Amino acid sequence: QINFTLEVYGRSMDTLLLILCACLIMTMQAGFALLEVGSVKVANTYAILLNNVLDVCVGTLGYFLFGYAVSYGPTTSGFMGTDYWALRHLPNDDALTWVFFQYSFAATATAIVSGAMVGRTSYHAYMIYSFIITGFVYPTVVHWIWSGNGWLNSDLYGLAFQDFGGSGVVHTTGGTAALMGALVLGRRKLTKEVAEHAVPESSPALVTLGFFILMVGFFAFNGSSEAHISRPGDPEAVARAVINTALACASGGVATLLFERVVHKKINDFYVLCIVANGCLAGTVSICAAVNVATTYSTLFIGSSGAIIHCLWSISLHKFTPIEDPVDATAVHLAPGIWGVLLCPFVDKNKGIFYCGYAGQSAAWRQLGVHVGGLVCIIGYTAVTTFTIFTIFDKLKLLRSHQEKFEHAEALRIHEEELAKQSHHGFFHDVFHH
Amino acid sequence: QINFTLEVYGRSMDTLLLILCACLIMTMQAGFALLEVGSVKVANTYAILLNNVLDVCVGTLGYFLFGYAVSYGPTTSGFMGTDYWALRHLPNDDALTWVFFQYSFAATATAIVSGAMVGRTSYHAYMIYSFIITGFVYPTVVHWIWSGNGWLNSDLYGLAFQDFGGSGVVHTTGGTAALMGALVLGRRKLTKEVAEHAVPESSPALVTLGFFILMVGFFAFNGSSEAHISRPGDPEAVARAVINTALACASGGVATLLFERVVHKKINDFYVLCIVANGCLAGTVSICAAVNVATTYSTLFIGSSGAIIHCLWSISLHKFTPIEDPVDATAVHLAPGIWGVLLCPFVDKNKGIFYCGYAGQSAAWRQLGVHVGGLVCIIGYTAVTTFTIFTIFDKLKLLRSHQEKFEHAEALRIHEEELAKQSHHGFFHDVFHH
Amino acid sequence: QINFTLEVYGRSMDTLLLILCACLIMTMQAGFALLEVGSVKVANTYAILLNNVLDVCVGTLGYFLFGYAVSYGPTTSGFMGTDYWALRHLPNDDALTWVFFQYSFAATATAIVSGAMVGRTSYHAYMIYSFIITGFVYPTVVHWIWSGNGWLNSDLYGLAFQDFGGSGVVHTTGGTAALMGALVLGRRKLTKEVAEHAVPESSPALVTLGFFILMVGFFAFNGSSEAHISRPGDPEAVARAVINTALACASGGVATLLFERVVHKKINDFYVLCIVANGCLAGTVSICAAVNVATTYSTLFIGSSGAIIHCLWSISLHKFTPIEDPVDATAVHLAPGIWGVLLCPFVDKNKGIFYCGYAGQSAAWRQLGVHVGGLVCIIGYTAVTTFTIFTIFDKLKLLRSHQEKFEHAEALRIHEEELAKQSHHGFFHDVFHH
Repeated sequence: QINFTLEVYGRSMDTLLLILCACLIMTMQAGFALLEVGSVKVANTYAILLNNVLDVCVGTLGYFLFGYAVSYGPTTSGFMGTDYWALRHLPNDDALTWVFFQYSFAATATAIVSGAMVGRTSYHAYMIYSFIITGFVYPTVVHWIWSGNGWLNSDLYGLAFQDFGGSGVVHTTGGTAALMGALVLGRRKLTKEVAEHAVPESSPALVTLGFFILMVGFFAFNGSSEAHISRPGDPEAVARAVINTALACASGGVATLLFERVVHKKINDFYVLCIVANGCLAGTVSICAAVNVATTYSTLFIGSSGAIIHCLWSISLHKFTPIEDPVDATAVHLAPGIWGVLLCPFVDKNKGIFYCGYAGQSAAWRQLGVHVGGLVCIIGYTAVTTFTIFTIFDKLKLLRSHQEKFEHAEALRIHEEELAKQSHHGFFHDVFHH
Repeated sequence: QINFTLEVYGRSMDTLLLILCACLIMTMQAGFALLEVGSVKVANTYAILLNNVLDVCVGTLGYFLFGYAVSYGPTTSGFMGTDYWALRHLPNDDALTWVFFQYSFAATATAIVSGAMVGRTSYHAYMIYSFIITGFVYPTVVHWIWSGNGWLNSDLYGLAFQDFGGSGVVHTTGGTAALMGALVLGRRKLTKEVAEHAVPESSPALVTLGFFILMVGFFAFNGSSEAHISRPGDPEAVARAVINTALACASGGVATLLFERVVHKKINDFYVLCIVANGCLAGTVSICAAVNVATTYSTLFIGSSGAIIHCLWSISLHKFTPIEDPVDATAVHLAPGIWGVLLCPFVDKNKGIFYCGYAGQSAAWRQLGVHVGGLVCIIGYTAVTTFTIFTIFDKLKLLRSHQEKFEHAEALRIHEEELAKQSHHGFFHDVFHH
Repeated sequence: QINFTLEVYGRSMDTLLLILCACLIMTMQAGFALLEVGSVKVANTYAILLNNVLDVCVGTLGYFLFGYAVSYGPTTSGFMGTDYWALRHLPNDDALTWVFFQYSFAATATAIVSGAMVGRTSYHAYMIYSFIITGFVYPTVVHWIWSGNGWLNSDLYGLAFQDFGGSGVVHTTGGTAALMGALVLGRRKLTKEVAEHAVPESSPALVTLGFFILMVGFFAFNGSSEAHISRPGDPEAVARAVINTALACASGGVATLLFERVVHKKINDFYVLCIVANGCLAGTVSICAAVNVATTYSTLFIGSSGAIIHCLWSISLHKFTPIEDPVDATAVHLAPGIWGVLLCPFVDKNKGIFYCGYAGQSAAWRQLGVHVGGLVCIIGYTAVTTFTIFTIFDKLKLLRSHQEKFEHAEALRIHEEELAKQSHHGFFHDVFHH
């Protein structure tokens, strides 16, 4: 009798943790939406926000109909799940807690993608790719690493890719898909009326509100990644996860400010507000993988270095490539996500390269190998699938919104003129100087 | 000793669920306020928001002084409670958890009313009717159905009105009161400066933020309707409730979009954003009653049909009646609320008409009868009491705000001119063609 | 075995309470930021919001590196802690839950200060004083009263300063620091372009949203002040705390409205919205100290009287002093905070002056003496340290932002002219009338 009660209580507590944290994680949808409309010059705020709402709707359907089955269904050689379609055949209703919790993670991963393509896609394309990413692409990666039966983290092949809070699973996957989207969309030249459209008064407040919502959401995200709180060691693990999240967030923000002041020397106030907020988030993203095993000092290092990498990525993407990433979705999620996965085998306070002593070095370096290999697979798989989807949409003329079609054509025309002018100069240069 | 500890732990867990969910439910006040100011053209945003703040203040006092006593006090023949005024005579402080939790529900029901009358009522009227609805009208319905001793759901008369999350208790009651308010206020003709007052830049962001806050609030709302989490079966029930909430919300949004695109063919972006967000909420409202017993497929059906009913109601109200409901409060809460209560006896996966087999049909149809009868009583009681209150206020010239008095008089004048013109045309028509 | 499981479960539940409430408390950062930008006329919203973000970053580092050690480290004669610097030497990871929870309180206390100096300080000054207040000033007061070993509340000197939710520890400390900041900054004359800068459209919505976030944050704040929920009596204490918070908030709002309508007769809608929201918060602040021991009626009295004191303070500060407090940070936190600490020994339903009967009077009045003495120490200590810091910064020309330097100089010039004119008038007055 007592043992039965204890068993029920254990499940009750785990359910409390997972459901309440999932609620807080779902508020991150509002955070992403606010960051997007608050920090981007756009012609049509309505369309962007409608996309955010539809994103959740379609993503929910995608996850419940297919996504959960792909990620947590009985495995086929560790590659993807094959049952529980439309939540059927679940062993019991208790599994629904896990479904809801994982659903909040999937929604977050998909929301990352929307940032990089904000205001440029058509409704139809947006809804279809939301459905595919939430229903297939992201869940596959989850199955590999978090299902307990995936090829990257199970006894199946003896591999143990370590990613507590999702630097790899959530942020690298979402960030890669975002990069592919931005890549396929390519150059853009804002039409005159959009370019002159002043940043609205309320924007900075929305950005800040969005940031704070995401910050709190990340506490819930990383804290609940322990997945249960009723077993010995759980409360401690949850506590360390939230503390490290706060530290990484803080050190990311301070590092970004110092970088901007000392190295980059940008003085536009709005730019600094946005990049510091993004720096905080980048710090948080980079600690996700090791958030349960990093010491305080490691966390400060990972958070601040992740934020600096975010700054460098953001500046480089803008300067050296034709890729437009208006809300720095790839800078915040992809680059620090990769960084976090790579550092994890070094800073693990139990068996990391810096801590394990001489005896553990071989295992620790092997772990690093698994992480590098895993990253290549995650990025490769996500890049190929999403690039294919976006390209097909683009060829079918479904991808771009009406407005975007003009802006993209205009940008291509200007780019060709510039190329032509350069070769012209080149011609005279050749004639007169050689 | 161990049993004592277990008993304390059980109460601790229930308290955690109820208090934390009540906190999330209270954030819905912000969601309602944002939806209102974000989606309505108004002369005075300040007044609307002040009303929202006062709503909470006065509603709190109303609920704690009278409301809790009316809903959960010792019953008088199942009609209303008669003790615990001002929270006195409560058996112990543990009951306060339940008070706080129920208070968050009452605040939600009252907030629904404010939407339909947004920007048109005076302070004084607003505060008094908030007090009465939170203190008497809504608690009476709660007593009938949720107190355990009410005439509609207890052994008293052998009836068992089934309403897990409040499609009937919260949304039909709130929606009916809202409809009565809008009915008494009647026609409106915005004065020129208000009509020309552009929708502010930030509105769509506020609407979207409000929507996401309400969505998360509904997870907490329906999840915590189980009322405890420490008993066997609780974690599963909570999990099913939140999953079904997410599915109903998503299917509602998608159904609304399809309806708008295929049938209604509205193209105004702001309109589509607002109605899709409202469609999501309508889907959620219609699942409330059966949220713990509906299967995945039933939920998708209830959510999408509830959302379509919301669309039809919204369009009909606007086209065929002189009732103004600027934020579609009745379309979102009343119509889908009724729909949810009616469908519940069909979709209950344990004993519903579609699932119970031949043997259970008689009981299931009887259940439907109880639901129809219960709805008539809820709507009748709420309509009579609130209509009376609003009419008395209107006769005493207390109901309308200063600005509203002009707009209403102007609308009546125009309406009478039109009637006169029609009869004039009718006159010539008669003379020359017959 | 069973006892071990029970012990783990107890910690699990406490962790759930503390971590989830800390998350809700951290959302208060967004609430403070929105109240600030929503209710202040400023030249540079970006700078204010960036300060709010940096506040959290620097405050986090300050608290984790020094603050926790100062507040909860092994004591030196009850004055301050001396170990756990940078969270080292903590007995176990379970302590991290407490660290995170206390960190959310420290962040709140520091955010209070920012309100009084909003838009007037330089980045560098802001970051340094955030660090010092979160790292040293506030934690010292916490050590005195909440550490269990402090001189004001332990067996050390037999004193027991009673402050459940922080009227004294959080709000009086934060409010005093805010007052010192405003005092050192002194007069301000907005430059013409700032003064004419219209209140943005979205402001009232942001203020209201900020208010609701803070309201819900306070539920979590006071509810979780019990610090655990797994022991007998905990659930009841948490429930009473949140109920009393709601009642104090509501009565504060209603009292403020009545005061404004009947006594002050201000009619500006925006002003009324802001002061009613602030009145609600003031009511909540004044109940904090006694929130677990006050009866329903006491709470209504404390909440409403605290709100009226807030109104009087706000009006007096504006009328009779040159101190600028644009968001009424001192009126909301300092005055009601002091009021709450002073009333606590009267209204304690177990041993307060009004309840303890003849036998307990001597102990109850002694308790009042401790509260008065404690307040003097808190205010004195905070005032001296923060005044010193701000004055040093000001002398080093580090305190004020670029814009502020002009505005302050202009205000001083005008003030001196007025003084000169007065003495001039005084001269003629003297000559011709005496």
